[in-house]
Parts: sequence; C-alpha cells; structure tokens
Amino acid sequence: MRANPDLALDVVGVGNAIVDVISTVPEDFLDQHGLVKGAMTLIDTERATSLYAAMPPGIETSGGSAANTMAGVASLGGRSTYIGKVRDDQLGEVFAHDTRNGGVGFDVPFATEGEPTARSLIQVTPDAERTMNTFLGISAFLNPGDIDQEIVESAAITYCEGYLWDRDEAKDAIRHAMTIASDAGRIVSLTLSDSFCVDRHRDEWMDLLDDRVDLVFANDAEVCSMFETDDFDAAARQIADMVEVAALTRSAEGSVVLANGERFDVPATPVERVVDATGAGDLFASGFIYGLSLGVPLERCAELGSIAAGEVITHMGPRPHVQLSSLI
Amino acid sequence: MRANPDLALDVVGVGNAIVDVISTVPEDFLDQHGLVKGAMTLIDTERATSLYAAMPPGIETSGGSAANTMAGVASLGGRSTYIGKVRDDQLGEVFAHDTRNGGVGFDVPFATEGEPTARSLIQVTPDAERTMNTFLGISAFLNPGDIDQEIVESAAITYCEGYLWDRDEAKDAIRHAMTIASDAGRIVSLTLSDSFCVDRHRDEWMDLLDDRVDLVFANDAEVCSMFETDDFDAAARQIADMVEVAALTRSAEGSVVLANGERFDVPATPVERVVDATGAGDLFASGFIYGLSLGVPLERCAELGSIAAGEVITHMGPRPHVQLSSLI
Repeated sequence: MRANPDLALDVVGVGNAIVDVISTVPEDFLDQHGLVKGAMTLIDTERATSLYAAMPPGIETSGGSAANTMAGVASLGGRSTYIGKVRDDQLGEVFAHDTRNGGVGFDVPFATEGEPTARSLIQVTPDAERTMNTFLGISAFLNPGDIDQEIVESAAITYCEGYLWDRDEAKDAIRHAMTIASDAGRIVSLTLSDSFCVDRHRDEWMDLLDDRVDLVFANDAEVCSMFETDDFDAAARQIADMVEVAALTRSAEGSVVLANGERFDVPATPVERVVDATGAGDLFASGFIYGLSLGVPLERCAELGSIAAGEVITHMGPRPHVQLSSLI
Repeated sequence: MRANPDLALDVVGVGNAIVDVISTVPEDFLDQHGLVKGAMTLIDTERATSLYAAMPPGIETSGGSAANTMAGVASLGGRSTYIGKVRDDQLGEVFAHDTRNGGVGFDVPFATEGEPTARSLIQVTPDAERTMNTFLGISAFLNPGDIDQEIVESAAITYCEGYLWDRDEAKDAIRHAMTIASDAGRIVSLTLSDSFCVDRHRDEWMDLLDDRVDLVFANDAEVCSMFETDDFDAAARQIADMVEVAALTRSAEGSVVLANGERFDVPATPVERVVDATGAGDLFASGFIYGLSLGVPLERCAELGSIAAGEVITHMGPRPHVQLSSLI
C-alpha cells in the first residue's frame, strides 16, 4: 500500500463531530445507570438530560473518532482535513476551534437550524476504561452534499468512521466519499468503531469491506464481532482476506497488521499510568496513517500508531496534549 | 471569629459565574498577544473572538472565583450555596451542572435574554502560571434582585468576590448581600481577587473593608496594591487593622493570618509538580472557610486552605478533582 505523497493532503477524515463531556466516576456508577462498560451507546435527548444530571462535574473537550484521528495526524506533522457537522452553537464553536487550531482543515459550514452539536457523555472509571453515551444531534445529519469532492480527491487517504453508519443520509455521505476516493485512485479506509456498531451493520459492512475498503482499522472486540467468533486470530485472517491492509489493535497487547499474506505483531508503547483510554484507537490510526504518508514499512506504521496511542491514554481527553511529532 | 454552626449553610458565595477555557501555551504566546501574565484582564466580545481564534485547542471547565471556592467547601464536606448569573445557553448548562453536581446549591434562574454565559480564556504557561482574559457576558448583570435574602440569612458566612465589582448593578448586588448578612449578624467576607481590580477600586474597597468586611482574603500582590507599597508585612499590618481576620496567601511561601493583633505564618502544602495555578487562591479560601465552620483555630483554618490549594494546582482546572474531605 502506497499513499501518494504528491497530493495536497495526506488524509481526509469523515465522521460524527462531537464534543466530549468527561467525568470520572466510581465503578458502581455504570451499574446504577445501566451503562455498558467500554461501549458506545447512542442516546436520545431525554436520556442525555437525565444521564448528564446524574454525572459528577466534568470537563468538555472536542472529540469525535475521525476528528481525533485527524488531530493526531496533524500533531505528528501530517496534512489532514475533517468533514463533519456541527451547529452554530457554543459547543459547535468549541469543536471548530479545537479542530482548526489543532492544525486540521475544517470548512464544513455550521448548520443554522436543527439539532444542537453532538456530545458524548463519557464516564471514566478507576481502571481508565471509558464508557460513551452519545447524543448525535446535528452530527448524524451529515449528507452527501457535505462531502467536498475536491478535498476528497486531493487526499491520499479517505478515512471514514463506522460510528457514522446509523442514519441513511450519513451512510450515503460515507459511500459518496468512498466512491470519489476510489474513482480517483485514492486509498479508502474504514474504522469499525465499536463492536455494537459492527453488530448492527455486519452485513452491509461485509460488502463494504469486500468491495470498497483498502485499509481497515478495528480492535479485537470489533473484528471478533464482525465474524461472530471469539477467535481473534481466525477473525484477523478473515478480515485480512477482504482488504489490502488490516490494522488491528488489542489494547495493552499491542497491535497486529495483516497484509499480503504477512502478519506483524507490534507491542504497545509502555506508559507509566493509563488515565483515560478515550481516543486510544483513534490515535493509533493517526500514527498508522502518518506512517503510510511517509512511506515507511507497515510494521513501522503500527509502531507510530502505538506511540500516538500511548500519549493520549496518559491524560483525560481524546486528543494529544503534546506535539506528537516530538515523540517520534 | 466564630461561624454559627446552627445555620442551614456554612457559606454563600456571590460572584461572576464563568466557564473557563484553558489552553497550554508557550511563554511567548503572552507577549505575542499583549497579555499580562498572572493577571485577570476583562475583554470584550471582539477581543474574546480574536484571542480565542489564536489559542491552541483547549478544555472547557466550570470556574468563577467564588464558585470555585463554594465547590471546594462542598468537596471538603461543608454546606455551600452559590449566587451568580448564567444564560440559558450550553455553557450556562455546563456551569449549573458542574456547580450543583459538585454539591453546591445553585438556584439563580438562567437568564433568558441578554449576553451569553461568561467565559474566561485562560493561558497556562510552562511555569504553571495562569493568565486570564475574561469576557463577563451575562455574569456582570447580577443585580440586587438576584440576592435571595433567605439564603444569605441562612449562611454563617457571606463570601463575595472583588471581580464582581466592575459594574454598578453587580456592585449593588454585593453591597445588598453584605448588608443582609451584616444585619443578620453573619460574617461578611471579601476576596480582593486581582491586583488590577484592587487598583481600579482602591478607594471604595478601603471603605468597604473598614465598614463592612469581617474576613478578607488577598494574595501578596493584591494586599500590596491595596496600600500601594512593595512591603508585604506593612500592607498586611494595615489591612489587619481594618478587619477582624485577614487571610493572606503568598504562593509557594504559604499563607499569613492576622487577627487580634496576632500573626500566624503557615507553609504551603508541598506538591510534586504544579501544573496549573488556576484556582489556588479560591481553594485556599475554601479550606479556610471550612475550618471556620468547624470552629478550629485560625492557624488550622489556613492549613486546611493550603491542603485544598495544594490539590487544585496539581491538575488543569480550578475545581478539585478528588473529594477534598479525603485529604484532611
């Protein structure tokens, strides 16, 4: 796999534009509120209100899976742009500010009507695991008209998040972006995002992986869910047969890259203390994509992913707190 | 000084209700943008927009000096309520949530028109010093009608922040709260907030300290500004003559309490690494006030202040991240 270095952008990300609301909670908070630990659960306005009312004081910080990945690429020194939808409200302003000032291009006009900017209510438990409850708001209303053909054509990689796959319009937006990228001979990439997402969209995603996706990102739970198995190695082989490159993460056990019949196992970057796992997978993808843009071997791409993921789990929030380029 | 323990509340705080927007910046960011290091500068909408546009990605977290103090008192196990004004916008919702869910009573109705909720654009430099640029928004429109007489009468201490002294209506609100408290035989407390604030209001505050305030909080720069001197000890003696108790902070050099002709010097609580000084003075006041509510000696009140301040400077953000009652 070679990312064309002569284009204006290394990568364009497409996803749900979200502001994270993060609180540290005791373990029993999850049970008390019927939350599925480690998962991303979609919630409606009413649930968002009642769950927020129950959460301890928190911090707000820009998130959104693909947007985090683009922020990571920019922090590493790559050229990234983001496509996602926010409202013209205070949280939308925060999202646009943090994204742009993190070095990521972001030119989708603010929606002037409809639902508010998306937020994800994130509970971080003492084991540093994050549990996400996402009110999608206006983000789910991304539509094919929001996909700027010129931007997609100008990017070596088009990176889409599976999270966006829950509404028909947004789904069409992803398909549209992937078609443009593919027609222009660019690399098409998808992250499976969440094992429950996989479960909801398994059949459609099988086709998408087979027909369209060149580079897939997934963690162990997601790839196992995809093939309805507990056998990671078997699932990894199956997904590798469907795409050119599969980059799979396994939390503390590091990552596995499969391509051209080869498999590379890469260890996780050791960290002193894991504070908040939010963004770990997103930042792994940053490093991997940045590596592709440099044209380094896939094994080194995964190492760069581990370094980026290793930074983001040492603090609250899903985007880097230091210039990642200083770590590589 | 004795805080009546038989009342419903230990303290009610009155101040500017603000959401903090915090970014880490290199030292030269301050010079480039003409910022006065360590100070609180009031900014208008235009300046807020241009400065925010220049700031790196940040986090949003509820702040406001007196509100931070009330959050600290609650975290220590005390009973506190807060009076300040937010709009019915997203940042207002964040402020109300964090304040209430931090254990502080907060029942001022959201304003349904006018300026948006206040925000302070805070730059934290590598030395952990914070530089604040505050867009007051609706917070400055606090007026005497917002002061709930029953709440003030039910609190052993009424704690007001000098920051609020910049608009006539808000000034009247403070005077009104102090009059109610004083008439009911409660303790009236003021924090001088900022040396530039002191400079703007020196004459009025001289009268206020002389006539109305029982317990004053200030840092070394503020008390020196008050008496236009560089001699801290002289300034400390002067302010002590005007009030019953003066609780003065000196950053890493700890604090000094003056009362009844006595002076106690209390060391700062040692911390491994200072990350962000925002809220240090506010949290010192929390501990001191909580100590008064317990009826412990003034020296011990200052020690409790040091412990609370010691926690808040070890992380980003001006409110405690752990239950402070677990530290004492």
